[in-house]
Amino acid sequence: MSEVAERRGRGRPRKQRDGASAKSAILKAATEEFAERGYDAASLRAIARRAGVDSALVHHYFDDKADLFTASLDAPLRPDRILGVILAGPRDEVGASIVRLLVRQLDDARSQARIVAILRTALGSGPGSRMLKEFLTREVFVRLAALAGGDDADLRANLAASQLVGLMLTRFVLKLEPVAHADADELARRIGPVIQWHLFGDVQGGTVRPGSAGTQQLP
Amino acid sequence: MSEVAERRGRGRPRKQRDGASAKSAILKAATEEFAERGYDAASLRAIARRAGVDSALVHHYFDDKADLFTASLDAPLRPDRILGVILAGPRDEVGASIVRLLVRQLDDARSQARIVAILRTALGSGPGSRMLKEFLTREVFVRLAALAGGDDADLRANLAASQLVGLMLTRFVLKLEPVAHADADELARRIGPVIQWHLFGDVQGGTVRPGSAGTQQLP
Repeated sequence: MSEVAERRGRGRPRKQRDGASAKSAILKAATEEFAERGYDAASLRAIARRAGVDSALVHHYFDDKADLFTASLDAPLRPDRILGVILAGPRDEVGASIVRLLVRQLDDARSQARIVAILRTALGSGPGSRMLKEFLTREVFVRLAALAGGDDADLRANLAASQLVGLMLTRFVLKLEPVAHADADELARRIGPVIQWHLFGDVQGGTVRPGSAGTQQLP
Repeated sequence: MSEVAERRGRGRPRKQRDGASAKSAILKAATEEFAERGYDAASLRAIARRAGVDSALVHHYFDDKADLFTASLDAPLRPDRILGVILAGPRDEVGASIVRLLVRQLDDARSQARIVAILRTALGSGPGSRMLKEFLTREVFVRLAALAGGDDADLRANLAASQLVGLMLTRFVLKLEPVAHADADELARRIGPVIQWHLFGDVQGGTVRPGSAGTQQLP
């Protein structure tokens, strides 16, 4: 879209500036707002105010809070969207699909550098940790828990997340070999069943018997 | 052991100083040596030289390099020793035992504060990351891989580690609820089978069928 077309859109900025600079002001304001207030308490309205633009302009550039949040982090993937795609597919393939998509979307050096920076922020002691935890809880874990169902749904979602976080850290941050260079299908075959187990496995049975839940035909 | 007895032992320091200060000089020297050279290249001899004490005194205070390394980090647990205990037990219980011991040994606030600091160092971009990766590779992963056996033993050890690292991060660093407060037996029941699967599961079979490997009677 040309700059002129953007100015004529519903998101006309209060102050006259070109689209690129308005967008970058919004991103800067979002970065500050999320860091100060966390993901849950931050609002698009407050971000617009901070950026000195109309709220409509924020909606013109960004679909929703998750979109603006991931853009402000320059995130190399959208965990909420990945999850949306996967939840639309067969339940038996959830684990392998999550692993495969996560690995494939982080397959280039630039994405890996960004995810390492974001993981370090998430695991650090600064304000970035809180906002990332809130984002992941609201946009990812709550939906994984809804998928798992049952009284222990939140614990199941936590544990599925623990395996995915552990994979990303050993592969991208610690760079352990051979996991750092294992291919996406190999990792999906090995870790997919673990995610299925955490989400759906019969953990009360005393014996691990992946039945309809843990057993899955692999692609 | 009294100070006098220590001075009369085989680890008589070159310079006259009391035991506590010699030990603390050794720990300081070890911290520097490990940070500069990594775990693999650091030597007890070089650490003694750096501390200005006889090598015998280092051996008097510390069993081996792993002991000195974990002491210099003020580590709340000895992963190499935990593994030694577990490897002496039944193969079917390896996964549940690792999880239970890891969680129990990190059950108090002080241990948790230390493990969080160490995890952040391991995942950071400083020299601490290299020394911790080398320590874990040599003292833990190599032995897990030997236990798993087969052509893919190193990958299996990496993936078992990925689940354990992920557990520690979600529990102690991110403090996700409910995993942050789940009890050791519950976690052993849920994560033990995952460690068994990574180490011994039939990952080539196309279908997850924990047989002699993945199936385990839970305690």
